[in-house]
Parts: sequence; structure tokens; C-alpha cells
Amino acid sequence: MDWLEYESGTCSAARALAVLGDRWTMLVLREVFNGVRRFDDISGHLGVARDVLTRRLAVLVDEGVLVRVPYQQPGARTRYEYRLTQAGKDLRPVLLALIEWGDRYRAGDEGVPMKVVHRDCGAPVHLGLTCDAGHQLPLDAKLQSVPGPGARLANA
Amino acid sequence: MDWLEYESGTCSAARALAVLGDRWTMLVLREVFNGVRRFDDISGHLGVARDVLTRRLAVLVDEGVLVRVPYQQPGARTRYEYRLTQAGKDLRPVLLALIEWGDRYRAGDEGVPMKVVHRDCGAPVHLGLTCDAGHQLPLDAKLQSVPGPGARLANA
Repeated sequence: MDWLEYESGTCSAARALAVLGDRWTMLVLREVFNGVRRFDDISGHLGVARDVLTRRLAVLVDEGVLVRVPYQQPGARTRYEYRLTQAGKDLRPVLLALIEWGDRYRAGDEGVPMKVVHRDCGAPVHLGLTCDAGHQLPLDAKLQSVPGPGARLANA
Repeated sequence: MDWLEYESGTCSAARALAVLGDRWTMLVLREVFNGVRRFDDISGHLGVARDVLTRRLAVLVDEGVLVRVPYQQPGARTRYEYRLTQAGKDLRPVLLALIEWGDRYRAGDEGVPMKVVHRDCGAPVHLGLTCDAGHQLPLDAKLQSVPGPGARLANA
């Protein structure tokens, strides 16, 4: 099986990265997951330029990952906050996978900066791997990538 | 708990994205995971400019995610291929999470372009969530992010 024979762009990772493929985008999502939803709060906390943030948020809204919801404080004009759609919520494993890798390889001597815990029991959560045959697999289990129904041959 | 009180850059996702935070980088890793390891093969398959690829590979080698291994074909000069280090292999959940999201939200009518299967039994694999108390959780379980030992207060 030689993946060079198959088209590279027809890949779910490539398609997901077409939405998410820059650093700020994922960090904006982290903010919203952590309850930081307002433009000024996100901008200030991330230290990202306002024009960059505006563009990233617009893409995430266009792509159906965030929705823009108006809110109004007494005496102020209408402003907007951003909330996750179902497609946005379903990006949580991407964020968790990034966090687990960063915890493991970049946390440094001080230890991990954040723990993600199961709200019901307070215990830290981790990603695992299961297969449709019901096996619980280690994350480094032997896996294989095989073409699916939507694969396309390269130069075809 | 207000995450605005904590420093944004001291976050494992931010630190992981400092290594990975662009689209080509993750796609280069996908190639290597799929056994496409040689510069010309990666460049041709992805359709990425050679200078961009050179820079991305250099970062991944510097960051300890890939190693550059020489090989030589008869009559040709020494060339290099790229292999995953342990830190690189441990990025697989990031890629799997991206693929699962892309499969779900961007596969289109033709169906998924690639299936990732457990090599031993051939069944498709999926990411799951477990907690240290031994609970097997759905991916949308109620989670909470709490500051860890390495958290820093903002503006501190």
C-alpha cells in the first residue's frame, strides 16, 4: 500500500486543517472552551492583534464551528460573544490531544499548567484508543491507514 | 474559575502549537505516519513548495519530532529521509483527532477518504476518553479545566 498513489488533499486531516490550520485558530477555540467568549477578552488574553482575531473568528463562524451571539450590558451598545456549535464542541479531542502532547514534552520543571478533569469525579482525563471490534488499545497500538470509499488516485 | 486571570501562553496547547501550528507541518507529519518519508516524495505528494517544506522539516527536526536519516541508492549521492522520534509518534492522537473531525464534518458524499484500522483485527479505531478514576467517558463528557502546578497568573 503506497499512499503516494492517492491524492493528498482528499484527506480528512487536510480538510480539517483547512479550517483550523493555524496556531491562533486553535488558541481561539481553547479560549472559548475555557469560557472566554468575548472579543475583547479573547484578544487581551491571547495578545493577538485585533485584525487577526477578527479574521480568524469570521472563518470559524463561516465554517460552522462558532456562532456569534449578541449581548448587551446596561448603557452599552450591543456586543457579541462566541459560542461553540456542535461541530465546535466536537473539536475537543483535537485540543485535548495537543494539550496531552504539550504536557508530556513541553511542560518544563514547573509541571503542567492546566489539568483537564472529569467534572463528576474530579479525576484527570486522557485520550485513549478503541477499535470497533471492542478492543481497548494503547495509544501506540499498531495501526494501519487504508483507503476509504472517498479516496482518489493521484493525478486521476 | 476565570481563565482570564491566568497567563495564556503558559498552556500546553499553546506550546504544542508553537511546534505544530501551521497546516503544512501537520500534513508533513501525516505523510511520515503513512510511510512517505523522502523529501521529494513528500514535496510532490503534498504539492508544497520546496523551500516551505525545507523550513518545516528543519523545525520538526530541531524540535525533536523527526530525525533525518541518510540513505543512498546505487550510483546516486546520499539523500535523506525523515522518521518519527518517540515525541513524533506521540503526536498520533492529534492527527487521529483531526481525521475524526474531518471524517465527520468534511467527508462529503463520497464517504471517508481513509480509514485508520487496528492492524491486528482490521477494525476501525476511534479516540475515546478515560479518566484516572477508571471511567470510560463519552467524548462529550462534562469536563473542567483547572490550573495545574505550572500555571502562571496573568501580568504576574
